Amino acid sequence: MGPVTFYALLRRFGSAAAALDALPQLSRQAVAATRQAAEAELAAIGGLGARLVCWGEPLYPAMLAATEGAPPVLTVRGRAALLGAPIVAVVGARNASANGRRLARELAAGLGEAGVVVASGIARGIDAAAHLGALDSGTLAVVAGGADICYPEENRDLFDAIAERGAIVAELPLGSEPQARHFPRRNRIISGVALGVVIVEAAAKSGSLITARYALEQGREVFAVPGSPLDPRSRGCNDLLRNGATLTENAADIIGQLGPLLAAAAPPPRDITPARPRLNLPPPIAPRVAAAPPAAGGEDAALDLIVEHLGSTPVAVDELVRQCQMSAASVATLLLDLELAGRIERHPGNLVSLR
Amino acid sequence: MGPVTFYALLRRFGSAAAALDALPQLSRQAVAATRQAAEAELAAIGGLGARLVCWGEPLYPAMLAATEGAPPVLTVRGRAALLGAPIVAVVGARNASANGRRLARELAAGLGEAGVVVASGIARGIDAAAHLGALDSGTLAVVAGGADICYPEENRDLFDAIAERGAIVAELPLGSEPQARHFPRRNRIISGVALGVVIVEAAAKSGSLITARYALEQGREVFAVPGSPLDPRSRGCNDLLRNGATLTENAADIIGQLGPLLAAAAPPPRDITPARPRLNLPPPIAPRVAAAPPAAGGEDAALDLIVEHLGSTPVAVDELVRQCQMSAASVATLLLDLELAGRIERHPGNLVSLR
Repeated sequence: MGPVTFYALLRRFGSAAAALDALPQLSRQAVAATRQAAEAELAAIGGLGARLVCWGEPLYPAMLAATEGAPPVLTVRGRAALLGAPIVAVVGARNASANGRRLARELAAGLGEAGVVVASGIARGIDAAAHLGALDSGTLAVVAGGADICYPEENRDLFDAIAERGAIVAELPLGSEPQARHFPRRNRIISGVALGVVIVEAAAKSGSLITARYALEQGREVFAVPGSPLDPRSRGCNDLLRNGATLTENAADIIGQLGPLLAAAAPPPRDITPARPRLNLPPPIAPRVAAAPPAAGGEDAALDLIVEHLGSTPVAVDELVRQCQMSAASVATLLLDLELAGRIERHPGNLVSLR
Repeated sequence: MGPVTFYALLRRFGSAAAALDALPQLSRQAVAATRQAAEAELAAIGGLGARLVCWGEPLYPAMLAATEGAPPVLTVRGRAALLGAPIVAVVGARNASANGRRLARELAAGLGEAGVVVASGIARGIDAAAHLGALDSGTLAVVAGGADICYPEENRDLFDAIAERGAIVAELPLGSEPQARHFPRRNRIISGVALGVVIVEAAAKSGSLITARYALEQGREVFAVPGSPLDPRSRGCNDLLRNGATLTENAADIIGQLGPLLAAAAPPPRDITPARPRLNLPPPIAPRVAAAPPAAGGEDAALDLIVEHLGSTPVAVDELVRQCQMSAASVATLLLDLELAGRIERHPGNLVSLR
């Protein structure tokens, strides 16, 4: 189940538990399979000394929670409490210059001194240097695969050090091997947890610029370290500066720009929260939107009415609302039920059809 | 006589010739000395194959003419016609890096390809590199001393090449040795002739930043080449970028920003205008402000009245106007006469006293 369906369920039922109680008639089998997989996953997480942090829980990063498509659940190894601190992402080129790596490390250390936790991927080059600089103060490695999978292997020592002294954050379940298609979502988490994103060396059209674009879409501050026009690794940063990124030479430039946001945020925790496996399903969370009222006249009858008006040819949801003489909210809820049961398919333009 | 007095005379008399005709009773000796010096200077300029270009003449750079305290007269060796082309200044650190010099040279060459004449000082480092890049297309060296004085001596070959293929521009008379106090005015001329000023490498608080400040005061575009925060020679440029300078990686960045201004300007001349010594005084120029009417009741009587109201204790000009019952314009004109005759002294706050 992806984030869109997850949040649609929460909006309707108010909590994950309530959704599971209400859904057996729709997809008993799927839920049973999920429960089995979830229990195995939770056991494995416990074995690793990690924990789950769910959307709506106090430890879930507040900045990330407000982004579109935020991961419903994060697996966190190490100091999960770091997720509650003010965070700044430091990212950049894998083939970074020695100067670029030195700058990333110094920036990260300077952020740490100012009470800011650093987030990055765990690629070689700038990412690795940023973690090294912030290892003592607090650093988060957001990985594209499972929290137990180190990639690239050359960063094994760093990965282990972060798992112990910082935190490894993963959206995917344990054991997931990172694949190319996972990296864009991972990059959205890096910018999503952060108040701002610092780019240190990035070639034109490089992955770091994609992270910068996500950051802008998410309303984050974007910082870029300038460099010589003769160095291709500066091209991306200079382009960002041309387009309004904050010119950054040291951590003070970042702290100065983020000042009010940092003042409003809590200082990072100095204690290492003991990792405790959570074997229960997450507690109910406050719904972001009031739960839709059930359709009048019994849900099953209403479902039948909807299905009766659907066929293999896609039809507009607005048209369904008119034809069934039900409220738009009720039709939306019933369509969600049908979607979860795998009985309908959605199409662009807010059209639906029977599978 | 400095530019302030020069333009005050022009405003009053409408032309230099008219001012000289009107002034003999005030400072006959000074004018005689100046005429003698001027004739010797003109002969020497002719001997060098150089020429004078006066404020108000067609060849006087239009951008410079509009600046405060523009030099009344420029001595120009070489292709004086270059002064009429669109000009961009390229300046920067004397202790430039190899990369900085390469960038300056490439930028200057790129500007030349786009039909822009380059202006700079003739220091080593960025200045020299910029001239080298633009030697074929058109370059102006604005010097702090006389147009016949090469400083520093290490740039002798470049100086000679510019005198032949580009142009040497000087405010001071031939033979003047450049002194520290001359450089700020020289820098104001460099920014003054230009549509924009490009800074390539500049340490914090360096002379190039003073040129950039003049450029801003004069309403010029300021361009800066970014560099690594680890290189102190980038500090000044990065500061300029932080404060709104246009990030510049190549000539296209400059051309793009100046586009409309360049389109409005004439292309640089390809012919070398033969240098012709000018042995006559400059023709009358259009006054910038209508000449002030002479004081009523005869000028001598009015002068006596003013002097009567002055003493060794400074008095406000406003107070003089009231006490003498004359117009403010008349008092201003009469005070100028007295100042030229060396009979009064000016003090801050628009106060004057007898010498």
